[in-house]
Amino acid sequence: MPHIQLSEEMPGITAGFNFRPETAKPMRELAHVLLHTSGNESFSSRDRELIATFVSSRNTCYFCQTSHGAAATHLNGGDAGLADAVCRDYRTAPISGKLKALLAIAEQVQIDGKRVTQQHVGEARAQGATDMEIHDTVLIAAAFCMYNRYVDGLATWQPRDPQMYAQMGERMAEEGYFRP
Amino acid sequence: MPHIQLSEEMPGITAGFNFRPETAKPMRELAHVLLHTSGNESFSSRDRELIATFVSSRNTCYFCQTSHGAAATHLNGGDAGLADAVCRDYRTAPISGKLKALLAIAEQVQIDGKRVTQQHVGEARAQGATDMEIHDTVLIAAAFCMYNRYVDGLATWQPRDPQMYAQMGERMAEEGYFRP
Repeated sequence: MPHIQLSEEMPGITAGFNFRPETAKPMRELAHVLLHTSGNESFSSRDRELIATFVSSRNTCYFCQTSHGAAATHLNGGDAGLADAVCRDYRTAPISGKLKALLAIAEQVQIDGKRVTQQHVGEARAQGATDMEIHDTVLIAAAFCMYNRYVDGLATWQPRDPQMYAQMGERMAEEGYFRP
Repeated sequence: MPHIQLSEEMPGITAGFNFRPETAKPMRELAHVLLHTSGNESFSSRDRELIATFVSSRNTCYFCQTSHGAAATHLNGGDAGLADAVCRDYRTAPISGKLKALLAIAEQVQIDGKRVTQQHVGEARAQGATDMEIHDTVLIAAAFCMYNRYVDGLATWQPRDPQMYAQMGERMAEEGYFRP
C-alpha cells in the first residue's frame, strides 16, 4: 500500500505525477530531454533507455527497470534479450565499446558521483564519446537515482503484468515523457 | 579539473546548467517548486532547505551541502548553527518533532526508497505531517540524490570560499531557482 493517498490503478511514478502536477512537469520534461529528444545515431534513445534501465536495476527499482527496459526493447526491434544482458553484465553484452564505457561511468554515478575518474572519462573519449554524451550519461544515471527513490520511497503500486509494461514501454519509446 | 569542458569560474551545478540549458530548465524548475514556492508556515522553505542540506551531507556533496546550508542559514536569520546541528545529528537538533520525523524519512530515501516504512510515515503523521509534506520530503531527498551526483559526477569546481556560499545562499533563499 502506498505511503500516502495516491490514485488507485495508477502504477509507479504515474501515481506520484498525478498527486503533484507541479513537480511532475519538470520531472517529465527532464526525462523527455535526456531520453527522447536528444537521441541520435551516435547516442540513441535505445542506448539512453538502456542506461536508465541499468541504473534502475542497480537501485533495484522494479517499476523503472521494467518500464524503461520495455522502452529499450521496443527501440531494439522487440528483442528483450539486450536489456537483460546489459543489466546482467554490460561488459559482455552485445553493445558498442562506447556504450560499455558510458555504462561504466553510469555504474559509478549510481554509487557516488565522486567515483567517476579521469580514467573512466578517458576510456569513454577513446571510444568516441563526446562531452555532451558524457554529460548526458552522468545526468541520466543521477536522474534515475531520483526517479527510482521517488517511486520506491512512496511505496507506489508496481504491478507484475509483463503485457502492461510492454505497452507502457512502447508508448514511452514512441511518444516520450512530456505532455504539455 | 572538470571531466568535460565546462565554463571556468562557474561553481558547482551552475557549470552543468550552463553547459546544457535544456536539462537545466527542468532541474531549476523542480528545485524552485520543492524548495522555494511551496514553503509555508507548516513546512517552510527553511525546513525544506535543511532537508536538502542534510541529504547533501549524507552524499558528501560539498557544493550542495554548503550552498543549501547557506540558504537555510539565511532563512534562519543568519544563524548557521542550525544547519550544522541537523547534519551532525538531527535527532538532537533544536527543530520540531515533525521536521525530525521528516528528516528520518529523508535519511532512508537517501539510501534507498524501499527503506521508508509505514512506521516512519506513521511517526511523521503523528507529528502532524500531511500527505503533501511527506510527498515533498521523499522527493526533496530523491532529487538531491540527483543534484549531488550531477555536481560530483562532472567533477565541477567547488570553491572553498565561505563568503561566496553565503552570497549564493542568500540569493537562492530570496530569489529561488528558476529564471525563465
